[in-house]
Amino acid sequence: MLLNPPISLSRLAALIQVDFQGDPDALVTGINEIHMVGPGDLSFVDHPKYYEKALGSPASAILINQRMEAPDGKGLLFSDDPFRDFVFLINKFRPFEPAAAMISPTAQIGQGTVIQPGVFIGNHVVIGSHCLIHANVSLYDHCVIGDHVIIHSGTVIGSDALYFKRRQWGYDKLVSGGRVVIGDHVEIGSCCTIDRGSTGDTSIGRGSKLDNQIHIGHDTIVGENCLFAAQVGVAGCTVIEDDVILWGQVGVQKDLKIGKGAVVLGQSGVTKSLEGGKTYAGFPARPAREVFRDMAILRSRSSSFRDPDR
Amino acid sequence: MLLNPPISLSRLAALIQVDFQGDPDALVTGINEIHMVGPGDLSFVDHPKYYEKALGSPASAILINQRMEAPDGKGLLFSDDPFRDFVFLINKFRPFEPAAAMISPTAQIGQGTVIQPGVFIGNHVVIGSHCLIHANVSLYDHCVIGDHVIIHSGTVIGSDALYFKRRQWGYDKLVSGGRVVIGDHVEIGSCCTIDRGSTGDTSIGRGSKLDNQIHIGHDTIVGENCLFAAQVGVAGCTVIEDDVILWGQVGVQKDLKIGKGAVVLGQSGVTKSLEGGKTYAGFPARPAREVFRDMAILRSRSSSFRDPDR
Amino acid sequence: MLLNPPISLSRLAALIQVDFQGDPDALVTGINEIHMVGPGDLSFVDHPKYYEKALGSPASAILINQRMEAPDGKGLLFSDDPFRDFVFLINKFRPFEPAAAMISPTAQIGQGTVIQPGVFIGNHVVIGSHCLIHANVSLYDHCVIGDHVIIHSGTVIGSDALYFKRRQWGYDKLVSGGRVVIGDHVEIGSCCTIDRGSTGDTSIGRGSKLDNQIHIGHDTIVGENCLFAAQVGVAGCTVIEDDVILWGQVGVQKDLKIGKGAVVLGQSGVTKSLEGGKTYAGFPARPAREVFRDMAILRSRSSSFRDPDR
Repeated sequence: MLLNPPISLSRLAALIQVDFQGDPDALVTGINEIHMVGPGDLSFVDHPKYYEKALGSPASAILINQRMEAPDGKGLLFSDDPFRDFVFLINKFRPFEPAAAMISPTAQIGQGTVIQPGVFIGNHVVIGSHCLIHANVSLYDHCVIGDHVIIHSGTVIGSDALYFKRRQWGYDKLVSGGRVVIGDHVEIGSCCTIDRGSTGDTSIGRGSKLDNQIHIGHDTIVGENCLFAAQVGVAGCTVIEDDVILWGQVGVQKDLKIGKGAVVLGQSGVTKSLEGGKTYAGFPARPAREVFRDMAILRSRSSSFRDPDR
Repeated sequence: MLLNPPISLSRLAALIQVDFQGDPDALVTGINEIHMVGPGDLSFVDHPKYYEKALGSPASAILINQRMEAPDGKGLLFSDDPFRDFVFLINKFRPFEPAAAMISPTAQIGQGTVIQPGVFIGNHVVIGSHCLIHANVSLYDHCVIGDHVIIHSGTVIGSDALYFKRRQWGYDKLVSGGRVVIGDHVEIGSCCTIDRGSTGDTSIGRGSKLDNQIHIGHDTIVGENCLFAAQVGVAGCTVIEDDVILWGQVGVQKDLKIGKGAVVLGQSGVTKSLEGGKTYAGFPARPAREVFRDMAILRSRSSSFRDPDR
Repeated sequence: MLLNPPISLSRLAALIQVDFQGDPDALVTGINEIHMVGPGDLSFVDHPKYYEKALGSPASAILINQRMEAPDGKGLLFSDDPFRDFVFLINKFRPFEPAAAMISPTAQIGQGTVIQPGVFIGNHVVIGSHCLIHANVSLYDHCVIGDHVIIHSGTVIGSDALYFKRRQWGYDKLVSGGRVVIGDHVEIGSCCTIDRGSTGDTSIGRGSKLDNQIHIGHDTIVGENCLFAAQVGVAGCTVIEDDVILWGQVGVQKDLKIGKGAVVLGQSGVTKSLEGGKTYAGFPARPAREVFRDMAILRSRSSSFRDPDR
């Protein structure tokens, strides 16, 4: 999530009323969750287990719940509740604005694009040229859609990330400040749901084709010319490289990587990263040849135990 | 489903033109299917296998297809087709009323609640304060939504129960007369479907968070502070206690109970009730430690059978 | 997909500017993909592996990328890219027409049918009498809905087939020219997606009942009085006979047949055709008795390997 214009460290500290260490005039150019962080960004950390990761990250400023010396070139903001203050800043710089109309007057829609009836287009959405957006699609604020994109009815682009911190009193929400970015020539089936990034982008690469009822979690990156069959679910923060094929009802856990050209057979469950160029099956997903060989062996051995009257 | 005002036993019998036994002036205060029945209710039974259950239930009146003595304090209505007459009464006391507008004039919407464009709000819906209902959500008649609730686009609350009786000519529908009740601080993702109770309530407890494309069947009760990941499906009449976590694509069969704090790992299939406080996996779902141990054993043994050139 | 009026072979050849062999005045009465082809149809083939199948099919005319003698009574159109020219003809004879309104003026809606708010009804849709179409449903162009049909909110009928040809530059779309045909007394739950046929019909037989979030692929034929529980997915070109029951989250692969009265238990994966009248389970789906026996045997044997302190 970009800050435009950038904000100085001292100004950020003043906004959330906390002490800080580091150059007061250092400019913060973005706000990003620690998985997505880059130079210029503010991020947050609230558990000692992740202090080292946060302090070693490229972030320029970190909201942290422990007073310490700032590393060279980094600003630290000391908060008793970094999560709460991080959410405050997301809301401050990307506030939710209720819609004024089915199609926001702040949306940009390219030439030759057809918008069917019942489509909701939120604030600051950008849609390229020659797209076809079918009836009753919902595009949340800040989504970016390329050229020649087809989106089928009932699909929702940009709903919030499932990202909660468990407090004693219940789940506390990390307000979603990110976007969804859809490449050129992408087609998305009906009743799909693609969540926005928590602070960064969820993206679908050029030429990829998604069937119906597919779920793509927040901050997930899908490469070019991928093909996903119906009812596939991909959890958050996963990277799927180009030319990957996922068959129907496959589930992919979060924070994984699926290599270029991998094929995952129907109903498989991907629980760890997969090398590209191979075919996988089963739960947990393993090379398909291995899975089918094991199945055959197990079945032949178990059949010898069966009662003879079958 | 409440009858307000209550109706006397003799009046109910007259409505469906059947004989009855019991106090003609006894007041019936509700209509409920046998799983949900309480004192004051009318219920029905049409198979001898369930006569004992129905007669032993707290129901005050029972539609039954067998003449017999009424037990003490219970009314019996003798029908040649209790299912048909029960459906007649649901339709009589909670008739479907076509919508007059996208937002029914009979709906109540609390202060500070934002309704985005394209939202359908049926008759007699009650929505609390400070809610955010995103574009193209559908809320069927009689739904009750608490305060500070967020519902994402494409989600449907209150569609009919899948509840049919097989007749010789096909499936005969038990018209749904129940409601959906959503607690305070609940968040529901995009393209979820939560069916109304057949006669009672389907409910989601305070603070629970549902990701996208989740299905919750009729009369299911979800406790407080539960967390369900995307594409979870829970069949009807199941009770899920507080603090339960269901990961992506988990399926739960009907009429079960999942105890407080249980965690069910992704893609598992829950086929019987689960004790609280433990982690489960696999199909059928069993304690995860057990499942992973079995997997490791089976794999190591099957690998000894593989050809050596791998 | 019917051509009305029919077109002569020579006229078709002129439209796509190709040479042809056969009777120039032979009338082509339809355009169909090779799986769905009948007498009078034009079809296409672009891979030598399928030449024999195409030439032996009942099609009256074939777009083909190889010059050869036309078999008796068949017309051949010689194209360097039959797929491209086939798509051109689908677009020519069934062009996409942007909607003029939420309910197209060309739609026909029967007596006693209730259309709730937010429903999109495309061009040339036909809806029978006494139907109930709930809020925010989307019915694409050319869908045919019988009498006494109930369709719940968020459901999409007639979205495009997932049918692509992989080119070097990416996926090339076979534009969908087919329809969806829904029989009398069918009920379809919320957030279901039923894709149109690629050129023929996807159909749901009289009296069948579908729960929520069900996906039915293109050209699939569902028989009468079937019952599908929530989150079932059926891929394209599959035939499901009458009285089949699929429980929750079942997946069915493409080009299969499931026989009359078969029952498939929850979360199973159907990978080959199933005989009618039996109950199936597991992945790949096998007779349930067999699956449960194998499970019991495997579990009892693996438990003997477990450490004794459990």
